[in-house]
Amino acid sequence: MKILVVNPNTSASTTRAIKETALRAASPGTEILAVQPAYGADAIDSAMESYLSAVAVMDRVLSVAEPYDAVVMAGFGEHGREGLQEIVDVPVLDIAESSAHVAQMIGRSYSVVTTLQRSVGAIEDRLRLAGLADRCASVRACGLSTSDVDRDPAAAMEAIVAEASIAVRSDHAEVVCLGCGGMAGLDEAISARLGVPVVDGVAAGVRLAEAVVGLGLRTSKVCTYARPEPKEITGWPISWILGGDVGTEA
Amino acid sequence: MKILVVNPNTSASTTRAIKETALRAASPGTEILAVQPAYGADAIDSAMESYLSAVAVMDRVLSVAEPYDAVVMAGFGEHGREGLQEIVDVPVLDIAESSAHVAQMIGRSYSVVTTLQRSVGAIEDRLRLAGLADRCASVRACGLSTSDVDRDPAAAMEAIVAEASIAVRSDHAEVVCLGCGGMAGLDEAISARLGVPVVDGVAAGVRLAEAVVGLGLRTSKVCTYARPEPKEITGWPISWILGGDVGTEA
Amino acid sequence: MKILVVNPNTSASTTRAIKETALRAASPGTEILAVQPAYGADAIDSAMESYLSAVAVMDRVLSVAEPYDAVVMAGFGEHGREGLQEIVDVPVLDIAESSAHVAQMIGRSYSVVTTLQRSVGAIEDRLRLAGLADRCASVRACGLSTSDVDRDPAAAMEAIVAEASIAVRSDHAEVVCLGCGGMAGLDEAISARLGVPVVDGVAAGVRLAEAVVGLGLRTSKVCTYARPEPKEITGWPISWILGGDVGTEA
Amino acid sequence: MKILVVNPNTSASTTRAIKETALRAASPGTEILAVQPAYGADAIDSAMESYLSAVAVMDRVLSVAEPYDAVVMAGFGEHGREGLQEIVDVPVLDIAESSAHVAQMIGRSYSVVTTLQRSVGAIEDRLRLAGLADRCASVRACGLSTSDVDRDPAAAMEAIVAEASIAVRSDHAEVVCLGCGGMAGLDEAISARLGVPVVDGVAAGVRLAEAVVGLGLRTSKVCTYARPEPKEITGWPISWILGGDVGTEA
Amino acid sequence: MKILVVNPNTSASTTRAIKETALRAASPGTEILAVQPAYGADAIDSAMESYLSAVAVMDRVLSVAEPYDAVVMAGFGEHGREGLQEIVDVPVLDIAESSAHVAQMIGRSYSVVTTLQRSVGAIEDRLRLAGLADRCASVRACGLSTSDVDRDPAAAMEAIVAEASIAVRSDHAEVVCLGCGGMAGLDEAISARLGVPVVDGVAAGVRLAEAVVGLGLRTSKVCTYARPEPKEITGWPISWILGGDVGTEA
Amino acid sequence: MKILVVNPNTSASTTRAIKETALRAASPGTEILAVQPAYGADAIDSAMESYLSAVAVMDRVLSVAEPYDAVVMAGFGEHGREGLQEIVDVPVLDIAESSAHVAQMIGRSYSVVTTLQRSVGAIEDRLRLAGLADRCASVRACGLSTSDVDRDPAAAMEAIVAEASIAVRSDHAEVVCLGCGGMAGLDEAISARLGVPVVDGVAAGVRLAEAVVGLGLRTSKVCTYARPEPKEITGWPISWILGGDVGTEA
Repeated sequence: MKILVVNPNTSASTTRAIKETALRAASPGTEILAVQPAYGADAIDSAMESYLSAVAVMDRVLSVAEPYDAVVMAGFGEHGREGLQEIVDVPVLDIAESSAHVAQMIGRSYSVVTTLQRSVGAIEDRLRLAGLADRCASVRACGLSTSDVDRDPAAAMEAIVAEASIAVRSDHAEVVCLGCGGMAGLDEAISARLGVPVVDGVAAGVRLAEAVVGLGLRTSKVCTYARPEPKEITGWPISWILGGDVGTEA
Repeated sequence: MKILVVNPNTSASTTRAIKETALRAASPGTEILAVQPAYGADAIDSAMESYLSAVAVMDRVLSVAEPYDAVVMAGFGEHGREGLQEIVDVPVLDIAESSAHVAQMIGRSYSVVTTLQRSVGAIEDRLRLAGLADRCASVRACGLSTSDVDRDPAAAMEAIVAEASIAVRSDHAEVVCLGCGGMAGLDEAISARLGVPVVDGVAAGVRLAEAVVGLGLRTSKVCTYARPEPKEITGWPISWILGGDVGTEA
Repeated sequence: MKILVVNPNTSASTTRAIKETALRAASPGTEILAVQPAYGADAIDSAMESYLSAVAVMDRVLSVAEPYDAVVMAGFGEHGREGLQEIVDVPVLDIAESSAHVAQMIGRSYSVVTTLQRSVGAIEDRLRLAGLADRCASVRACGLSTSDVDRDPAAAMEAIVAEASIAVRSDHAEVVCLGCGGMAGLDEAISARLGVPVVDGVAAGVRLAEAVVGLGLRTSKVCTYARPEPKEITGWPISWILGGDVGTEA
Repeated sequence: MKILVVNPNTSASTTRAIKETALRAASPGTEILAVQPAYGADAIDSAMESYLSAVAVMDRVLSVAEPYDAVVMAGFGEHGREGLQEIVDVPVLDIAESSAHVAQMIGRSYSVVTTLQRSVGAIEDRLRLAGLADRCASVRACGLSTSDVDRDPAAAMEAIVAEASIAVRSDHAEVVCLGCGGMAGLDEAISARLGVPVVDGVAAGVRLAEAVVGLGLRTSKVCTYARPEPKEITGWPISWILGGDVGTEA
Repeated sequence: MKILVVNPNTSASTTRAIKETALRAASPGTEILAVQPAYGADAIDSAMESYLSAVAVMDRVLSVAEPYDAVVMAGFGEHGREGLQEIVDVPVLDIAESSAHVAQMIGRSYSVVTTLQRSVGAIEDRLRLAGLADRCASVRACGLSTSDVDRDPAAAMEAIVAEASIAVRSDHAEVVCLGCGGMAGLDEAISARLGVPVVDGVAAGVRLAEAVVGLGLRTSKVCTYARPEPKEITGWPISWILGGDVGTEA
Repeated sequence: MKILVVNPNTSASTTRAIKETALRAASPGTEILAVQPAYGADAIDSAMESYLSAVAVMDRVLSVAEPYDAVVMAGFGEHGREGLQEIVDVPVLDIAESSAHVAQMIGRSYSVVTTLQRSVGAIEDRLRLAGLADRCASVRACGLSTSDVDRDPAAAMEAIVAEASIAVRSDHAEVVCLGCGGMAGLDEAISARLGVPVVDGVAAGVRLAEAVVGLGLRTSKVCTYARPEPKEITGWPISWILGGDVGTEA
């Protein structure tokens, strides 16, 4: 089985980190193809950057020539899942949703700890649209941007643990989800500190993708996620205009 | 006052039609600047096309040199509002939300009649995220695509009236919203047929934009819709790469 | 265009203040007719007073001989909107709802700061029935009664700012609505203090009324808000019994 | 124990019918005092009439000189409960809410069958504000007005049974509530026809009032339902102006 | 009228205390038959113990030979109500639900104060499934187990008052429900301390059972709570296997 | 990895069928241990039978001597998950919830087709408590009991397809979940008939269990699902009383 893991941003180091996490999480025999888009921000902290990422990710996925069995979108709260579900036939997993699915399987309620307060809304929206908000005790921000988290993982861990402690004590969260792709790899240490299970989204996405593929299931094409009717679209795919630069692969 | 009305698709005739509706709806003294993006689909019926539109619309709006007082996004259920709210300071109105706001002011409940069943989900999602779904009795599809509606407005009217009648009789809708920019201009005739108020989104958006501007209010920049932190974004704006073609104006 | 603004209480100074706010908010060319009922409390802080106001306001509006294009009910959380929607044909706007509509147009979430804790429930109920509670982060009381606010606007401003700050910091409100007609005129100063947009309900109501009238729309009469069947009603209108005193006009 | 049952309308025959139902439902030893207001409509089918009733009922209750232990408001969907809860200290039960309470005790879900479609909204609103809408499968209208029901109980029964059958079959209601005070007395016959329990609101209100009184409990006065602060209220109580006519008693 | 009150646990002293509370709450003429199951925990603080109790309670009730008119299940948040509703024909009241019903009749919102935080979820779930969560301001834990409450009622009272004060002040609860059968008898003292009505579940259950019986109503058997189809069930009733020990009676 | 799959009923043929489905769904290398309880009904169609099953399943699982990595509870809508989560440390998956999780990963909305209308409530409740009801378009009954489905799978398939077609056409379900363990094995044929993905709960549960185990995660023991405090429980485990008959294994 081959899983295509897509970093929503253009940072090669993030793509490598995501790939490592995905590999560590994957079952024996699962191959991971980790790619990043050719354009967009190298860290996503706004809706504007998120929408651009949604398009760049669709663009990037369309350019992948080799076959794959599922896609994992490695953005926590980024837009784009419905678009990708339309244009590919294999299952598409989003890591915010995957985290919530897994969290609900192992606890009564969960909290997400993300980066900046301004990103809380996007995560709440994604969970809500996915029908996974009901058992969400809170989405909390640790106050560090995506880049801050990348730059200083030790400081990030302290900030995340501090906020997650409040989630457990005050919001009665029983599971904590790390609400940022860049937090990958911190889950075990944070879980040890807090005494509650900590879910890493990329790992969750990879394992759930394996599960859905293993079940022989694919995205329903009966209505909302049917392939778009073929039509000429000006300037699309944008990567063609960019001289065929479709983005790199980790 | 000048209102920038943005057609989410690349059809010049749709842009012209939207401009006419906007002009008809505007107060005396309000100028309408109607633009369309440089890339994307000429009719939007999928999430993939909607995401591309969200980016193309942000791109297009950023390229407008002259000052304006508000933006009206003329896509019914298209993505992008939060992104635009971040990158401009003036108020940004979305026509799906504007329709719902106005409908709630004049009736206990409303229904939306849109094009294809596959678009229902996108509209439901937008209304839900906007906190306007509670008084929505139903979102119904008349079975015609955006292009079908453009091509044959008479047939569209029959299909819309048929579906809207069910909404009024069975879902107890007291107001009907036309769920597609291309339905602009049909509101009065449909209202006459059904005996209930019919809201046209572009008209609603223009008048609500005037109201917000008149109140001296702008988008809150305190958190979610704050300007994105300045950062270099690869390939952005895309219109630059496209040789500076920023899209036309009606 | 002429807008009938109805003070729900019997205080002439409040009626004058509401009229001033309405005039300041109105577009050029919009006339404001501000009236108050002939009976009821001169400040409304309870459901008992609110119900009496609902009746006195309907009574007062029925006695207005000159034509008008819309009604703005200037009570924040007071009863009566549905009744008035039945007995007049022009659009009826309520300032609590108008505030929420406008707040949702310019921010992800809003809080209301009202007078006493005992009034919080009435405001929550009105927003909920109007389908506008979903994006309401909180309704908070500053601890001063309507009369206190009238008597000492400076103290009121401090109390409102204090409570609104909590709403912004703890409830993550991005817009603040002033939850009492008597707070009119404080919006700009409070906004300057808090750094978030502040919505005054009377101003919002007037501008939204203009918008709905400008759209050529009226209350749907197809079901809930149809005119009551003509029937003899004992003692109605009450103002007749009161010797024809229909209440004053500012 | 003495229970004050208040007919919201001015029809003496309705007051008598309500009194009979209340007496039949009451425990041995419970006295029923049935009153009607001095002004308002003799059948309530609109919000305008409902608001007037809310005031007239408060007025009427204030004029009752003899002591009583609880109040039952015999209007199904009429306004006023919160007002009355403020101005008396004894428990106040509303028959729409009482019906829903009892229905939830004996079935998984319930439907209400009321008179006209235009009254459905008021009942839905009352149940929703009371926190009792979650197990409400539907509120359905049989198409007859309150007066029609009074005039022709046999036809009413057929219409109610027809609509209730749909509620049971299609909405999966397991209990039916009669959504109009005037339907009192039809419950047993309808239950026999439908094979599901049928709840009469007046009976439910009386028995629940007995229960609350028996528990030694009264309305919480800690916040929302505290007595209004004493203040002079112009023209109140209205019955004084009407020459002291406080309405009759059955 | 005879009401069967079932202690969900196997503690004879709890059964006696419940019986005393029930007797104090009952109307003159109502007989109380208080029983306890033959197996299970003598204090229930987990879902495992709760499920066992649900079965043991059904078993115990089936073994009651003498006729009774209603059942009151005296566990606060314990499972089993739907099962009992199926296998007996008389009304079945649960004390968590009964508390909430009564609390909603006398206040705008209520809080529950229970024993341990781990029991909060079970109570929230039961209120939610019963459609009674909407007006629940909070379910709070005082930190003492069911056994702790039994052992030291004075300490329990202090802990409950402390938590209930927070519920009133911070969650704006207007009524407090004692969320544990073992708290019976503390209601009046706590009410005196807090100044808000305090509802004891056993008392509420008994009085509501009287009301439903008095109304001549029984559980709807039309669908969900119909008698199970007769089938052979291995090992059931378990009490037979236990040598016919059906549990004692207070 | 070894997964313990528990049939909630006492039918050996159902246990065998569940085992076959589980084996077919499992990854290479995953062992399936399928067990059934020693007591209870051989087909569960009521809450009474469901509660008994919850206890019998806990009892059965406690008696399993060999180690296992996760539990899959193979009852669709049966009680017991929280109890089992308390008493074992490994992850516990429920097939109703697992179906909903998987369905949400591959479609916008899903419907469940179950056996009898009387079981619909139990499934709705379980999905609701699990926080998975939001994307549930409907739970529909095909009108056949669990035993009927076992006896005549061909007739069951027709009945399920008929009801599922309505779910797809009228409720706009995009995925169908088979709401009964006994429907295992029909998924592919039904999917072929309907053109939408069909999810079998046992298969989903097994694959999700593998995913959670693969992630190294276990049930959160921080609060709700902590081990019950050790206490003596009369008559527990019931299987001891039954002479040590702990139920068979397929």
